[in-house]
Amino acid sequence: MMKEIPSGVTAAKGFRAAGLRAGIKAGKTNKDMAMIYSEAPAVCAGTFTRNIVKAAPVLWDQKLVAEEGSARAVVINSGIANACTGEEGYANCAKEAAKAAEVLGVNQKEVLVCSTGVIGVQLAMDVVEKGIEMLSPALESSVQAASDAAEAILTTDTHKKEIAVQCEVDGKTVTIGGMCKGSGMIHPNMGTMLAFVTSDAAIEQPLLQQILREEVEDTFNMVSVDGDTSTNDTCLVLCNGMAGNDILTAESAGLPAFRQALREVLTYLAKQIAGDGEGCTRLFEVVCRGASSREEAKKISKSVVCSSLTKAAVFGKDANWGRILCAMGYSGASFDPEKVDIVLESDKGSLAIVKDGIAADYSEETATEILSGHPVRALLDVHAGEAEATAWGCDLTYEYVKINADYRS
Amino acid sequence: MMKEIPSGVTAAKGFRAAGLRAGIKAGKTNKDMAMIYSEAPAVCAGTFTRNIVKAAPVLWDQKLVAEEGSARAVVINSGIANACTGEEGYANCAKEAAKAAEVLGVNQKEVLVCSTGVIGVQLAMDVVEKGIEMLSPALESSVQAASDAAEAILTTDTHKKEIAVQCEVDGKTVTIGGMCKGSGMIHPNMGTMLAFVTSDAAIEQPLLQQILREEVEDTFNMVSVDGDTSTNDTCLVLCNGMAGNDILTAESAGLPAFRQALREVLTYLAKQIAGDGEGCTRLFEVVCRGASSREEAKKISKSVVCSSLTKAAVFGKDANWGRILCAMGYSGASFDPEKVDIVLESDKGSLAIVKDGIAADYSEETATEILSGHPVRALLDVHAGEAEATAWGCDLTYEYVKINADYRS
Repeated sequence: MMKEIPSGVTAAKGFRAAGLRAGIKAGKTNKDMAMIYSEAPAVCAGTFTRNIVKAAPVLWDQKLVAEEGSARAVVINSGIANACTGEEGYANCAKEAAKAAEVLGVNQKEVLVCSTGVIGVQLAMDVVEKGIEMLSPALESSVQAASDAAEAILTTDTHKKEIAVQCEVDGKTVTIGGMCKGSGMIHPNMGTMLAFVTSDAAIEQPLLQQILREEVEDTFNMVSVDGDTSTNDTCLVLCNGMAGNDILTAESAGLPAFRQALREVLTYLAKQIAGDGEGCTRLFEVVCRGASSREEAKKISKSVVCSSLTKAAVFGKDANWGRILCAMGYSGASFDPEKVDIVLESDKGSLAIVKDGIAADYSEETATEILSGHPVRALLDVHAGEAEATAWGCDLTYEYVKINADYRS
Repeated sequence: MMKEIPSGVTAAKGFRAAGLRAGIKAGKTNKDMAMIYSEAPAVCAGTFTRNIVKAAPVLWDQKLVAEEGSARAVVINSGIANACTGEEGYANCAKEAAKAAEVLGVNQKEVLVCSTGVIGVQLAMDVVEKGIEMLSPALESSVQAASDAAEAILTTDTHKKEIAVQCEVDGKTVTIGGMCKGSGMIHPNMGTMLAFVTSDAAIEQPLLQQILREEVEDTFNMVSVDGDTSTNDTCLVLCNGMAGNDILTAESAGLPAFRQALREVLTYLAKQIAGDGEGCTRLFEVVCRGASSREEAKKISKSVVCSSLTKAAVFGKDANWGRILCAMGYSGASFDPEKVDIVLESDKGSLAIVKDGIAADYSEETATEILSGHPVRALLDVHAGEAEATAWGCDLTYEYVKINADYRS
């Protein structure tokens, strides 16, 4: 049995965290640096942006995950992305890791680093190094410490995003905690903005990497806020083995429970990112059913969740199903438009609006009522097979434009 | 030598047009039906949306172009797209063509039909048929008649889009005129919203179709307003041979002049669509140079022109080059990010903002000044080869969201 507990990245045994203001972001009060620390060496896995323009921390972490597969700490800053910063940017990642290694008494190659914020600006290393010095003594295993860290990694997000769950593996309680940030430039491809998952499970590193890659495909990679795949997308998982279970392998009886719990954490965080997209008012969930394959179902649901016109219609509470059908049509999937059924749902009810590819007999008034609810779900059935997939996004609002027209100023 | 003349679809010999209000659109004054008529049979070519959800008129026109390759008239309505309307929608296309054939004294299979507007609503055929009856006696070869037709096909466009040019073929003056409408759901793939080109050139039908397909790839298919490929995209070209030139074949000495003139018309109309995108304040032109192939150059320039974040930054006059580099990075093209140069241009000047993948030494004040100009151009050089491509789009504004949140109401 799996259960949710109130906490985040400090929930699992042996993990501590901190979040505070170092002075990277403008303003005077915003937290902008976080640290996660494991008391024991933790196997680590990661997925990263497929954008060929990769931020310096992505290059640093990719190398560490591939060559070491084990880590003790993660240092994260918001405000500056350390992307498009050339050799100086990469050297700054090494300096950050060296500084953290020094204050924590670990190896430089055991320190992962992540950044999010404005592209093309160098980190002020004196500020970052001072931040690392302050973070080390602030590390705690408390719920508050997890919360501080989750707050410190945000940019234009409106609230922090964290979760923790527990499951049983070999009769031992295994805990998985996670936090993430999202908001803009969200259209992950093999990763997401920044997500951090900590667990006390014992697990083989290659298996952890494989599970993570597969689960990210169905969770973070099914989220889109604006179609822009960031230079910094990173999802890191650290497992330190302190739960005391036998090391999980592909054959372990306890693996399905761990995997299910990990999936729950990733799905929750993915939906949190979608529902807090820049300027958005509502989470928009699109479920495609009856597709001929899972790939086809994913193409269709993701195409609808990415359509600017559909997103604007959700904002306007307009049951403009023609735009949904149109986005399905250009998704690249093949289906018979004359067999499509569409149902709209929210906490205000459920309504069939398309039957066999044309308008069902529905009331616009009821449709508007449902679209004023939260979250908004579109259920698409293409009647071509058994496969299903879900994609998450949000509505497109004036506020999105405002945020992104003014972001740097 | 090619020259531009003031007119549109009635500029070429033997073409007449009309535009008037039949009563399809809401309101009391907006024109909503247009007709184009050729005094002699005209070979016709067309490109159409690749969205698998195709509007009924697209299916009608595709069949006519493929099976007949010749036409006498085009009937166009705005207000209702006749898309996702099932068998009744297709039957209505046949009725429209039959009615026009009757009043014009031509064959039903010589009448092309086009619609644009709201998806999923049936045409009121009594209104449409009355419109056709009114259009026939209103047909004229005047500049005003072309203008009326260009006005009648608009939806949320803010102004009509038409052009006419003349060139010499075999010592004869050949005229090409065109009109189009765009605005929203603009991300054409093998076609555009609605574009109509008329010419008095004599040309073989298969050659016309081939030239059109190739030229559309470089013009309309390089435009994006919002990434949504419409169900109705259609570009039709009619050539009635009344200029008296020898019939153009692939070997004709006069072909390059005709092709160049056609390209000019299509490019002009494509840029007009981009610059009048829903809610947009400025045309945004992205030129990629130094690519390893034309395909790569197209991928890069189109990815940037489609990026919501970049478009919002253009609206906000923010030289956020990190977003441009990011969009280049997820375009699917391969290049070395550390070799990229970016220059921003407008009528207010030109400024190098990225050199070798990182910020050039430029003044933000000057960048903002340039971004307040019109049109805004981004010149991207990836230093990987000799290929070049241009894509056209527009900025993303509050107004885009407003229009599309409220479109149907």
